Amino acid sequence: VKAGESEAAINFLNALPPGEEARILAQLSLDEQQAFLKLLDGEHAAWLMETLPELQAAQLLSSLSPEQAAHIVDEMNSDEQVDLLDQLPEEQSEKILEVMNPEEAENVRFLSKYTSLCAGGLMITELLSFEESQTVDDVVSDLRQNAERYAEYNVQYIYVINHDLQLVGVLRLRDLLMAPPGKRLSSLMIPSPLCVPDSTSLQELQHFFDSHPLFGLPVVDEANVLVGVVRREDVEEAGEEQAGKTFLRFAGIMGGEELRSLPLKIRSARRLSWLSINIVLNIVAASVIAMYEDTLSSVIALAVFLPIVSDMSGCTGNQAIAVSTRELVLGVIRPRDWIYVFKKEFALGMVNGLALGLLLGIVAYIWKGNAYLGLVIGGALAANTLMAVCLGALIPMVLKGFKLDPALASGPILTTITDMCGFFLVLSFAQAFLPLLT
Amino acid sequence: VKAGESEAAINFLNALPPGEEARILAQLSLDEQQAFLKLLDGEHAAWLMETLPELQAAQLLSSLSPEQAAHIVDEMNSDEQVDLLDQLPEEQSEKILEVMNPEEAENVRFLSKYTSLCAGGLMITELLSFEESQTVDDVVSDLRQNAERYAEYNVQYIYVINHDLQLVGVLRLRDLLMAPPGKRLSSLMIPSPLCVPDSTSLQELQHFFDSHPLFGLPVVDEANVLVGVVRREDVEEAGEEQAGKTFLRFAGIMGGEELRSLPLKIRSARRLSWLSINIVLNIVAASVIAMYEDTLSSVIALAVFLPIVSDMSGCTGNQAIAVSTRELVLGVIRPRDWIYVFKKEFALGMVNGLALGLLLGIVAYIWKGNAYLGLVIGGALAANTLMAVCLGALIPMVLKGFKLDPALASGPILTTITDMCGFFLVLSFAQAFLPLLT
Repeated sequence: VKAGESEAAINFLNALPPGEEARILAQLSLDEQQAFLKLLDGEHAAWLMETLPELQAAQLLSSLSPEQAAHIVDEMNSDEQVDLLDQLPEEQSEKILEVMNPEEAENVRFLSKYTSLCAGGLMITELLSFEESQTVDDVVSDLRQNAERYAEYNVQYIYVINHDLQLVGVLRLRDLLMAPPGKRLSSLMIPSPLCVPDSTSLQELQHFFDSHPLFGLPVVDEANVLVGVVRREDVEEAGEEQAGKTFLRFAGIMGGEELRSLPLKIRSARRLSWLSINIVLNIVAASVIAMYEDTLSSVIALAVFLPIVSDMSGCTGNQAIAVSTRELVLGVIRPRDWIYVFKKEFALGMVNGLALGLLLGIVAYIWKGNAYLGLVIGGALAANTLMAVCLGALIPMVLKGFKLDPALASGPILTTITDMCGFFLVLSFAQAFLPLLT
Repeated sequence: VKAGESEAAINFLNALPPGEEARILAQLSLDEQQAFLKLLDGEHAAWLMETLPELQAAQLLSSLSPEQAAHIVDEMNSDEQVDLLDQLPEEQSEKILEVMNPEEAENVRFLSKYTSLCAGGLMITELLSFEESQTVDDVVSDLRQNAERYAEYNVQYIYVINHDLQLVGVLRLRDLLMAPPGKRLSSLMIPSPLCVPDSTSLQELQHFFDSHPLFGLPVVDEANVLVGVVRREDVEEAGEEQAGKTFLRFAGIMGGEELRSLPLKIRSARRLSWLSINIVLNIVAASVIAMYEDTLSSVIALAVFLPIVSDMSGCTGNQAIAVSTRELVLGVIRPRDWIYVFKKEFALGMVNGLALGLLLGIVAYIWKGNAYLGLVIGGALAANTLMAVCLGALIPMVLKGFKLDPALASGPILTTITDMCGFFLVLSFAQAFLPLLT
């Protein structure tokens, strides 16, 4: 790839199956990406930028001269322009804006007032709006005349505004199609249409599109002036990006997206930031074992069961966390329903605790031939399972009650507590039965 | 709620904020739900059914007489009718179909030929199709005449068919709007439009809608006859439902959705099915400890560090799993890129392994004042971290390579191996340095 010429490179890219370019390009080093980019014209380069993960695209862009960068950014879609320039230091993005096509640059400046995860940051400004006094014929002839210009627009609705540019109505294309030609928009439109202020959060937008089968939602500023349209697909894309970050955070990777093409220093630090907390939690939990060293040295077999009890309880508790998290998302429970949830989980904890306790107790009994060891291990696991299940069910509800994200903190809180309790239950039961175990 | 009268009940429901009904109704017992349902008319009852989680709706429906059930199902949307009746035993759903409105029943029978997670099962049959020889004017006047009937349709595209009902083209409403009235559809339509066979899987549909900004996709049978339209929103809804089940499976809940309103027996069994596998994996891993009982009883402090090392390595490995899973989804890596991934993770594993090993080694040294203990513990954690990171990165790729779902099996495979290796490394290092540790 590196040594190829312009035409060969483009042919090569075109020959790749879809999805392959992104994969191959993302794995190249920055130098190689740069060399490759130079072989492409503006349009191809813009497409490449949109194909790369955002983080890498920004890195690549910032390695170019402002003129080269501006040339590429000019060719991109307005919302992607903003997203990409947002990733650069302000000084650098300002330099690029200065040499960009002035009209494009002004639009980017307008859109970049907004943070990326609100309606203003997600909206596009390409929309069709007409005044309420116009007729169906006016609109249809304008559409026919400007068909070429509008071809790039993703038109689903026509927005109706008044003299002050305020949004007063919305018109579906089908209503326009089915209406008599002389009719005024004001008598055809759906008045007072659904719209959102430009500050609406991504979460609210997701909620909106989940409960309304619409493809776009008009966005207004404080004066009710129509400023843009948020499209369903952009909200979904932003939602997926967020979900990706949440997925990584859930597995203990903080501070944003990780891709293997990032420098080792960043990747290592992002992973260590959670690992270093986790090791402290682990040391705290394991310190319970240290307090029972005497008991442990009398019955060394206990050491085999400590990790089993703690891991099993973490697992049982995580099941309850998952069900609570899911029920909270589905809206079938709320934080104040904790008594209902507690009753349900208590019953389940009793059943599953007895089942698992019996199983592990029998294993312990068979292994060492000591029924009391079985009783100690089985009893500890049963009790810890009951506790883990109840705790796992309630932790996400408590966090949600305090407006915290249950997905993130529930797991670590649970496992630290179940580890400590598991160690404590096994070792204190053992201490109580010590003469019978040795 | 239970004792209320019809009107009071409806007023009560109407007064609730959106989302509340589902929550309150889902928490009622089956008897209470039944009593409540009797107070509502057909339309309200259908709405309630659609609001309840599918599993509960099916339970509730099967508790009614076929006539009562048919009365409610008649009022529902076609795709929801099929989904709901699918949940019932065939005998029962057949009885309901017999007393339903014959036209509705026939449509349900046609749609229920398909499994729910393919294009045929997800499509709707309400669509606008015209013959290719018709003109723009023909279509527009038909639309105007039938405006009322089509009002319930979610029209985005007009499908063009030939004499044999085969799909030959698609027309966007905007093309129709912008076209001269006398033009024939055959010269205006986009010919050979994108379409899918009715057997297309949900995953393929999701992939399609991800990469195409379309709102609906025509579905054809083997003879290329247009049979329905799959809408983006239905694919997304089905995808979310699947994702919910995957989320629960990921946390170890098998065999389908769990809601707390389900009977205890089902909930307990679904959770135990994974827990019983997990306890066996745990016992296998912990059996490594049993082989080193002598070493352990000489240096009882090791028992404190065993759970720490195994848990930390599980955690580090899970981070690598998350990054690989995400990169596989994003398409920036493929199973055959394992050498690239291995190199990247090996470097990271060295750095993070040394950092964590140093940290825990120092803790061990300070606690017992024995530098060799620190060396054993730190060295074991460092080595196990390196292994966990490389393994965690590669396991999802191997599973994906064998066309298995990496989300599900990666975690348990990883933690079983890292537990065993962690125990083995700590205890075998300790055995090697035994004279220096006591």
